[in-house]
Amino acid sequence: MVTQSSVEKFLDDLASGNPTPGGGSAAAIMGAMGAALVSMVCNVTLGKKGYEGVEAEMRAILQESERVRRRLTAMVAEDIAAFNGILAGYKMPKSSDEEKAARASAIQAGLRRATEVPLDCARVCAEVIALARRASEQGYLNVISDGGVGVLAGFTGLRSAALNVYINAPHLKDRAFTEAATAEIESLVGFCAAESEAVYKIVRGKLG
Amino acid sequence: MVTQSSVEKFLDDLASGNPTPGGGSAAAIMGAMGAALVSMVCNVTLGKKGYEGVEAEMRAILQESERVRRRLTAMVAEDIAAFNGILAGYKMPKSSDEEKAARASAIQAGLRRATEVPLDCARVCAEVIALARRASEQGYLNVISDGGVGVLAGFTGLRSAALNVYINAPHLKDRAFTEAATAEIESLVGFCAAESEAVYKIVRGKLG
Repeated sequence: MVTQSSVEKFLDDLASGNPTPGGGSAAAIMGAMGAALVSMVCNVTLGKKGYEGVEAEMRAILQESERVRRRLTAMVAEDIAAFNGILAGYKMPKSSDEEKAARASAIQAGLRRATEVPLDCARVCAEVIALARRASEQGYLNVISDGGVGVLAGFTGLRSAALNVYINAPHLKDRAFTEAATAEIESLVGFCAAESEAVYKIVRGKLG
Repeated sequence: MVTQSSVEKFLDDLASGNPTPGGGSAAAIMGAMGAALVSMVCNVTLGKKGYEGVEAEMRAILQESERVRRRLTAMVAEDIAAFNGILAGYKMPKSSDEEKAARASAIQAGLRRATEVPLDCARVCAEVIALARRASEQGYLNVISDGGVGVLAGFTGLRSAALNVYINAPHLKDRAFTEAATAEIESLVGFCAAESEAVYKIVRGKLG
């Protein structure tokens, strides 16, 4: 599992000419870093004098941010598996008409999965942004910049995942699915662009 | 060294209530991921049929992107050391006037370092964005979304580093330094916001 290798090894693998890990894996890790920073704000705030009133809220946010962090971390492997599915399809034999049909069908199934995984990554990154808002509005002031980095990482994870939808979706023959996926990702990007800038402004306003 | 631990362990440490690693380390890693993705575009493009004409340019970009990747990876440890410097200052004795003066001076030195490191991180992330433009303009079309994720990661690394300048700089007594650092970071954020959106548009235009 690529997330069990060191940060330096992961960066080496990302930089290499191998197709995976690539931008899709980086998207999931940025989302996971965003979720981790939301958790950090909650963990630091819990037990701080003057923040007793937000303790229940911090515990509620933390439970969610840890859930989405696990989900996004697991998506790195899903992204790699999806890409390998496309490659495996392209390597299938194509001598007979039957083989050609089976190969085309395997490639389409791989492309669909390579569209579904980043779409799902984008949905979960949207959750990171919503959690970062709650943590940044009420969390301990001295770690508020960490909440700000969390929302930026969450939105960049989402936008990066969107690029992976844009590159794969046009090659799908199932036009209804492509159109639904594209419409959903456009809507997520639009809504979360405004939302993450609003959270950034809250954080920036609390700094010097 | 935190970058030698696994990605999962790094995320656990980021999520914990310990002050480091925090948003500053996440900023450096996002910048390093951006540089790694620029390297990936170059590595995949090198040797591809039809891309012989950009081979020298890809090699030149790759040399730079690997240099800035090493620099940004090393900044994670620098960010942690800078923060620990502030903490060490706060823990110094303050019984006598001399001790108080030494303590205040150590805290100021720590804060200055904790402003210089993210400022430097932002400068190097600006290099990532410039390299991502060259790679995205001329790199292999099938990995162009990776160049796009690279520029988004580079700019988010820069903006995240800026938040760390904003949180530390106001506490510095050296006003001339604070003003110069703030002016430089504002200028970097402004220029690179426009530049990274321009690169994103190039990438988006090449996708379906």
